[in-house]
Amino acid sequence: MRVLVDGRESRSIDPLDRGLQYGDGLFETIAVPGGRPRLLDWHLERLAEGERRLGFPASDGDTLRREIDIVSSGSRCIVKLIVTRGSGERGYRPPRPARPTRIVVAWDWPATAAAAATGARVGWCRTHLGRNPALAGLKHLNRLEQVLARAEWDDGVMDEGLMCDDRGHVIAATQANLFAKVGGRWATPRLDECGVAGVMRRAFCAWQAGRGAPVEELAMTRAHVEAATALLLTNALAGAWPVSALEGRPLALDPAADEFQAWLARA
Amino acid sequence: MRVLVDGRESRSIDPLDRGLQYGDGLFETIAVPGGRPRLLDWHLERLAEGERRLGFPASDGDTLRREIDIVSSGSRCIVKLIVTRGSGERGYRPPRPARPTRIVVAWDWPATAAAAATGARVGWCRTHLGRNPALAGLKHLNRLEQVLARAEWDDGVMDEGLMCDDRGHVIAATQANLFAKVGGRWATPRLDECGVAGVMRRAFCAWQAGRGAPVEELAMTRAHVEAATALLLTNALAGAWPVSALEGRPLALDPAADEFQAWLARA
Repeated sequence: MRVLVDGRESRSIDPLDRGLQYGDGLFETIAVPGGRPRLLDWHLERLAEGERRLGFPASDGDTLRREIDIVSSGSRCIVKLIVTRGSGERGYRPPRPARPTRIVVAWDWPATAAAAATGARVGWCRTHLGRNPALAGLKHLNRLEQVLARAEWDDGVMDEGLMCDDRGHVIAATQANLFAKVGGRWATPRLDECGVAGVMRRAFCAWQAGRGAPVEELAMTRAHVEAATALLLTNALAGAWPVSALEGRPLALDPAADEFQAWLARA
Repeated sequence: MRVLVDGRESRSIDPLDRGLQYGDGLFETIAVPGGRPRLLDWHLERLAEGERRLGFPASDGDTLRREIDIVSSGSRCIVKLIVTRGSGERGYRPPRPARPTRIVVAWDWPATAAAAATGARVGWCRTHLGRNPALAGLKHLNRLEQVLARAEWDDGVMDEGLMCDDRGHVIAATQANLFAKVGGRWATPRLDECGVAGVMRRAFCAWQAGRGAPVEELAMTRAHVEAATALLLTNALAGAWPVSALEGRPLALDPAADEFQAWLARA
């Protein structure tokens, strides 16, 4: 593992950093499947959008690209990029100007990634997602809901858990976006109240749109998901991961997952 | 400022700590007005309750007390205690067993604390609080909503901002609990869906109950607040801070604030 903090090899963060104090920051998880970061432009676009919405100064894209190259150094790995609002005085008030902290970490490509081909066994989480349009869509550092949801199982039988909001709308899996085939067409939950607008979700939507079958963004209910003829999950690491079972009920793997993976490998 | 990390003087946290990665942690802000931490038992009780609800191993109270004494070293200061789930593997799944990180920081007693006597000028924040019973009441590290709310003003005219949830229920100020005198009795918002159950809120409720006038926990609306004959804010640092104006409309300072401060000084 390699870690750069503000461009320097380091394993040290200021305990007063607002990323730790308040979760006042953003992150990106970037797959580097063959030595080159995948969909990097879109990751940096999403980060920039998050910085704009949280009132951070904009990161320099060239610096980020250079540091991602340094930590990954051409190997197959996964890079996590964190940008926080930096340190400041005590209290919630954001320092003006803020001096963000930049953390870039590379991990070895995880062994579990290979398992994605066999299909995901998913179930419902009890922990729900709070709704807040001010934070919806962002990949920010306030992730306790996902932590609590992911703590609900550790049985080796379930691979991912689906999370709903308090209205019963299905939003996403703990670390993936969700697509459901309903009436022969792919739909995905609307993310205007909560959830993370994943880069791989964007890619899957773009691919489907390019085939003339645009994905519908839906106020998706559990009934939609339970009636779906196929489900798949997307995230930066797995690409598209077809769902093989929902609460123990087998589901056919849709060929769209493989077709998308092939498109992604070419793109 | 003095900082202990896991008992040692340090300004360094692992960038992979889950407190930073996910906001997977808890904190307490403890006033040490005269060299002795105020309401420390209740702070440690709330921390323990948070640890239980998040599935952390329980912190050792004696260790925490000792470290709070070390950083404060008998001086007038404010101590912030953070407990995170520590470092672990990549991903939301909590490590089992977790090895928490403990951070204890002492700051000089802030100059702004003196201003509390003059009354707080408050207004409404646009940023609302998302609701999640799994996190309600806890003083956890996911505080982006408060950061966004606190970023709404920087005018020197407003001291605090009141936050509502998406149903229009008033929950709290950005860094204080709220009490409203309605029909001659003090009421405070219910915190079963969001908000932080403040230690000073508990103290104010205990004091009122001891006087035979228990505080009512209410699904408080903006109408309640706008009709209140008096408002006051509580937090660990200020104690009770009477509100002198709501959105520019003057409010009489209720004597309860001073009476409570006197009780608190004796307690």
